[in-house]
Amino acid sequence: MSLLLRALRGEDTEVAPVWIMRQAGRHLPEYRALKERHDFWTLARTPELTAEVTLQPVRRYGMDGAILFSDIMTPLPPMGLELDFRPGPVLAAPVRDRAAVDALRVPAQDEVAPFVADAIRLLRAELGEVPLIGFGGAPLTLATYAVEGSGSKEYATFRAFLRAEPDAAHALLDKLAETSIAYLRMQVEAGAQAIQLFDSWAGLHDARTYAAFGATYARRVLDGLADLGVPRIYLALDGAHLEHAVAALPCEALSVDWRRPLTTWRTVAPGKALQGNLDPAALLAPTEALADEVERVLDEGRGGAHVFNLGHGIFPNTSPDAVARLVEVVRGHDRHAEAG
Amino acid sequence: MSLLLRALRGEDTEVAPVWIMRQAGRHLPEYRALKERHDFWTLARTPELTAEVTLQPVRRYGMDGAILFSDIMTPLPPMGLELDFRPGPVLAAPVRDRAAVDALRVPAQDEVAPFVADAIRLLRAELGEVPLIGFGGAPLTLATYAVEGSGSKEYATFRAFLRAEPDAAHALLDKLAETSIAYLRMQVEAGAQAIQLFDSWAGLHDARTYAAFGATYARRVLDGLADLGVPRIYLALDGAHLEHAVAALPCEALSVDWRRPLTTWRTVAPGKALQGNLDPAALLAPTEALADEVERVLDEGRGGAHVFNLGHGIFPNTSPDAVARLVEVVRGHDRHAEAG
Repeated sequence: MSLLLRALRGEDTEVAPVWIMRQAGRHLPEYRALKERHDFWTLARTPELTAEVTLQPVRRYGMDGAILFSDIMTPLPPMGLELDFRPGPVLAAPVRDRAAVDALRVPAQDEVAPFVADAIRLLRAELGEVPLIGFGGAPLTLATYAVEGSGSKEYATFRAFLRAEPDAAHALLDKLAETSIAYLRMQVEAGAQAIQLFDSWAGLHDARTYAAFGATYARRVLDGLADLGVPRIYLALDGAHLEHAVAALPCEALSVDWRRPLTTWRTVAPGKALQGNLDPAALLAPTEALADEVERVLDEGRGGAHVFNLGHGIFPNTSPDAVARLVEVVRGHDRHAEAG
Repeated sequence: MSLLLRALRGEDTEVAPVWIMRQAGRHLPEYRALKERHDFWTLARTPELTAEVTLQPVRRYGMDGAILFSDIMTPLPPMGLELDFRPGPVLAAPVRDRAAVDALRVPAQDEVAPFVADAIRLLRAELGEVPLIGFGGAPLTLATYAVEGSGSKEYATFRAFLRAEPDAAHALLDKLAETSIAYLRMQVEAGAQAIQLFDSWAGLHDARTYAAFGATYARRVLDGLADLGVPRIYLALDGAHLEHAVAALPCEALSVDWRRPLTTWRTVAPGKALQGNLDPAALLAPTEALADEVERVLDEGRGGAHVFNLGHGIFPNTSPDAVARLVEVVRGHDRHAEAG
């Protein structure tokens, strides 16, 4: 079994596997070249292009895993929410009341995104031994966009919606959870060997709100994948205050941001593989400082399974040379050697 | 002594004093009326207008404290950093290297912002028994803007700068700390009876980075005010992962955001007054739900000194009626009554 899948299943491997969130994307010149000819949504919905973009960082860096190039909004249009990119995702008609929730469809597994299934099949044929990670947004994070309608700093509309219309919010989260299960099961059946569930906006909420509207539905989705036998990774960005609820979720691995050391997360979630958590800003630092920070994260990741990654997506202005250096340092680090 | 100052000094008062972050500003129709005739920077730099805007929420709601209407960027122009509002603050020439740091001045106490001193003197004459809270940005947060040059979601440039130019960063923070001490001492000498230090971007950093570049300089500023004898309030937004460093700072009160219950903060910082921490989104909820959330925060604030406030600034689309209702619930809540 590949290094990545062994670590995601809890093995304390001698070398940490490495991949990087948003590794397929704007920091790569070969991606930017493709992007000049096709818009984002075309790249994400044309299987051959999706596969090509997904493969680019694996070819360049020899990453231990590929992650499907896609957008977490992908399941919204088949539910009936019209989506546009300018360049961030914008909904034509955000969900603001119960009637709008009731009008949403829960698409069948083969209706959510057939182009993603096709891309995954192409990728499996190309990737050989390198595992493919599928992904989706957690219901709370999908609901954040569905209600707010676009990116925002505060997501005030969504936070108010949870209080003004709790029943409609639960009905929305229920439909998003069912759609997500269908979407992610499809990805696994098409060939994805692990799944990452992104709860990018979980950290915006207090622990009580997260327990009611976030953890409940993340759990439902993760439980809905349990019988497939692939490792499930859950990411709650900015989730230090949600630690207990997050640690209790049914998943094999937690992807954590840079704010807290892995040593702390190891104590909070002793049974889980940890993924992370270099500050993406470290990749903009001089080579020496970058190498020091990578070593520190590797040291903090000892004492259990660790998948090296960033604490959040790579910044678009990162140099590919810095990423190559990061991979080199991770590969050269013996996690079982006595600490120096 | 006023209810607010008693609570800030650690008294477990029977009724919680209440004020609201950004209470003077866009949610008030009387502020928007003034704003049609004067731009933000004019309002913040014309003593009579600043005093008028500061007084508006005290008049309307009978708040237990007034907070100086100003911008945390105020000390940057006298240091040599040209500032413009379009409408967010933008620096003409952000600080990006050691030479730019060395070129910055540390203004004398009477040079930082004489218009603020004048506004404070006008306000003290008008406010009577209602205390006036002065404020400033903590050095880390001021440095964030000084380097980034404008608002940002990730502050990638600043986070990279801390790694690429640590010596220049420390030199910058040193000058910002000295300027902040001068600015805040001036506010107290002009009549401010409490000081709030805003570290709005502290939570962006990991605990190690915050300890080196954040807490060190926040401590310096707070220590630099100690002999004045006014209560010092420190706010670290999104600071759950920084709890130990924050709790150790030399201040009488911690202002905390809505993410974590006051009960948890009470355990982390047992000797300090707590200020907060209603989610600003609760003010957009139906009246019944708002009252329930206010009561919950009040209950969580028991067992020590509590200043009722929001966990972050009020949203501009908040109705003044909701704020009035909030104040009414806080006033009607006996903190020493047996829990119902």
